[in-house]
Amino acid sequence: MQKPSNPQGTRDFGPEVMRKRNIILDTIQGVFKKYAFEPLETPAIENLSMLTGKYGDEGDKLLYKIRSNREIVHEIDDEKAQKITELFPDRWIPGKSKLGLRYDLTVPFARFVVQHRNEISFPFRRYQIQPVWRADRPQKGRFREFTQCDADCIGSSSLIHEADLIHIYDEVFNKLGLSKAVVKLNHRKFLEAMVDELSLDFPVSRFTSTLDKLDKIGKDGVINELINAGVSEIKCKQLFELITISDLNETILDKLTSSFNQNALAMAAIGDLRELVRFLGNSPRSIKLELDLSLARGLDYYTGCIFEAVIPDSGIGSVSGGGRYDNLTDIFGLKDVSGVGISFGVDRIYEILDSQNLWPNANANNQSVLICHFDQETQEFGVRVAQKLRQSEISVLVYPDKKRINKQLDFANSKSFSHAIVIGQDEMESGILTLKDLFSGDQMKLSIEDCISQLKL
Amino acid sequence: MQKPSNPQGTRDFGPEVMRKRNIILDTIQGVFKKYAFEPLETPAIENLSMLTGKYGDEGDKLLYKIRSNREIVHEIDDEKAQKITELFPDRWIPGKSKLGLRYDLTVPFARFVVQHRNEISFPFRRYQIQPVWRADRPQKGRFREFTQCDADCIGSSSLIHEADLIHIYDEVFNKLGLSKAVVKLNHRKFLEAMVDELSLDFPVSRFTSTLDKLDKIGKDGVINELINAGVSEIKCKQLFELITISDLNETILDKLTSSFNQNALAMAAIGDLRELVRFLGNSPRSIKLELDLSLARGLDYYTGCIFEAVIPDSGIGSVSGGGRYDNLTDIFGLKDVSGVGISFGVDRIYEILDSQNLWPNANANNQSVLICHFDQETQEFGVRVAQKLRQSEISVLVYPDKKRINKQLDFANSKSFSHAIVIGQDEMESGILTLKDLFSGDQMKLSIEDCISQLKL
Repeated sequence: MQKPSNPQGTRDFGPEVMRKRNIILDTIQGVFKKYAFEPLETPAIENLSMLTGKYGDEGDKLLYKIRSNREIVHEIDDEKAQKITELFPDRWIPGKSKLGLRYDLTVPFARFVVQHRNEISFPFRRYQIQPVWRADRPQKGRFREFTQCDADCIGSSSLIHEADLIHIYDEVFNKLGLSKAVVKLNHRKFLEAMVDELSLDFPVSRFTSTLDKLDKIGKDGVINELINAGVSEIKCKQLFELITISDLNETILDKLTSSFNQNALAMAAIGDLRELVRFLGNSPRSIKLELDLSLARGLDYYTGCIFEAVIPDSGIGSVSGGGRYDNLTDIFGLKDVSGVGISFGVDRIYEILDSQNLWPNANANNQSVLICHFDQETQEFGVRVAQKLRQSEISVLVYPDKKRINKQLDFANSKSFSHAIVIGQDEMESGILTLKDLFSGDQMKLSIEDCISQLKL
Repeated sequence: MQKPSNPQGTRDFGPEVMRKRNIILDTIQGVFKKYAFEPLETPAIENLSMLTGKYGDEGDKLLYKIRSNREIVHEIDDEKAQKITELFPDRWIPGKSKLGLRYDLTVPFARFVVQHRNEISFPFRRYQIQPVWRADRPQKGRFREFTQCDADCIGSSSLIHEADLIHIYDEVFNKLGLSKAVVKLNHRKFLEAMVDELSLDFPVSRFTSTLDKLDKIGKDGVINELINAGVSEIKCKQLFELITISDLNETILDKLTSSFNQNALAMAAIGDLRELVRFLGNSPRSIKLELDLSLARGLDYYTGCIFEAVIPDSGIGSVSGGGRYDNLTDIFGLKDVSGVGISFGVDRIYEILDSQNLWPNANANNQSVLICHFDQETQEFGVRVAQKLRQSEISVLVYPDKKRINKQLDFANSKSFSHAIVIGQDEMESGILTLKDLFSGDQMKLSIEDCISQLKL
């Protein structure tokens, strides 16, 4: 008999984990909806031609390819099939795979937008919460099947979207009890302007990959690399004056104007940030918004604002990232469509909430009752009670089997039941039930109507 | 440039379809929870060895097999790879696939239960709502990727579960406005008893596959087949007297006891149904519960009660099926675990609701506001209004771009917005806003607080 197992890098989510995960997913989804993002789901299976070449050479290697016997039958003639079977008995007959598993939510979104561009009213704000698959080497915190939570707005260049995304960060992290979150903000044009002003004669991407190492090799390490690349010490000093700025306000933006020596690229970035500051106004925020001119995050992709969210002291890197891109739909032939989006890392947020035991009211939202009984008669009475509670949308189970009351209460405790009601002859005769709170241990004697009121509190 | 497309047999679900699908999925999930079913999710990717041989030869052919480059590299030596590349340039290097896509939710559930049997408190009631994949020939209403909605209870033989499943049918169909639904009920042991009593000398499965044709070939066709198989005309008449019974109550069960001539198998079935009737009591029901002794539904699998739900006059076959099984976990080495479950067909329910335009209050639950404006100043004021509405959990978008008011209102109508607020100089000065209901066309002049009250009605 085969030992049951799930594949390496995949996970089963049992009830307890599901309930916690759903707190995160429901919170994010609720906030996305509140900011008028609309739901979208695309198939797990994509035509392989839509995926290959979109994620670089490394990404191509991580694509899962799919085949069915049906396709094989259609693709290969008998003679070739015979030859291959001789060479490799008990193995697949080869054929060109035409299908692959979704690798992220961005490329399928771009495909959807281009495919349905005549039906969509732009700007199109969509959210998408679905699993993706990568044939990566599994390790702690890295899975082959994991859920992405994306919100993007496409077809509008207004900075109002960036402002909304910052509000979304604020609400999501607040609702999850992570109000210490820091959202770092940069603009790609600042990075380009730095390369200009430092007169670096190498590409922006090399400059940013050096900057990206700041956390790992420290300020001295970065300066060393830049000096080796021909940057003068004084320019390095100027650079670090810029990237240690962290406030975002009109005064700082004025200061940056002169620091960047009126560089045209920097002026464009500053113009965008001024618009963003106006849209943000002085609406209250719990999370911290930090300008970080060293933030790059896959720069080749982003063209305007760049975001990254971190939870300080969590021991975990960023829990969300995003930014503006001007060429997402280019790959499918639709040019000059500007978009901006963010993506939450559910697994990392889960890990932080779980390790700090920050789950917000996991039980409060989960009122559920186990009805216990002594015999056939009290069980049948219990079914009538259950149906009355369910009419008030309360979750109820009548313990299904004939076991001792202690066993039934053990069961209630082992599951997520918040309350138990034990039905005996007294309860059947009087109609007065004993509602036991399984967390506090408190008991109350109540009519069924009062039970309902108590549970709906 | 490649033309963007999704694979044959798969679907993109845009916002409008998503909102409708979610009405169905949220309703079913809500009712599952109310009956204390717990959430479970298993990975889309399963080890192929967990899937093959579980769905019969036909099922094996429909399994999607998965491969990644990583696995190929690990599996084949250079010499063989060379040979195969010569034979089939530009094609996959063959190797044994070790992974497959989930084909249904039942086998992964069985795997989960056996794999985690020491951590699970039984009885275990779980619901699972996830996509499955079958390499079937796509046709109208049949897809290669589709969502299953299953609820099962495992580890208890009490008929209370069957009673709860009937209550679930009642609530789900009622909440979806499908109260005309009919739930057909049979018991496998009735089918076995018929074979006994008719002295058929062929297997139960052949008998039931003949009965299953009743809808297609009619009563006469079935009788013909039975007579050809050696059944006498008088026994056929007796059979049809049995299978035209449709009420489920104590009197009918008494009558069946004598009709079946006290046959031991029939007595076991009648005993189960008596227990079910007691649990159902006289609690009110909108849907019709019908005994149907010709109902079989993949009999090899079910061992007790069998369910099928249909919506009369919908032109669509069953929208849900299920039953009791005593050997689900046998395939993974765990014997003697009884379970019972049902599965809803989301796509068929969607088709019925859509064709009859029965969507329950799709808009009522979807209050959302577009804020329109004339210039930068009114737009910024609109952002402040938006944040106040959002504090009351109202979904709001400030129109992001600078367009004429008519264009902004066209956009509101093309999306799902229920209301619009136009901000002009007057509104900024007075703080009194005009809230326009986009469905009725009604307008009201309200303070922002009254806007919130109106939208939260």
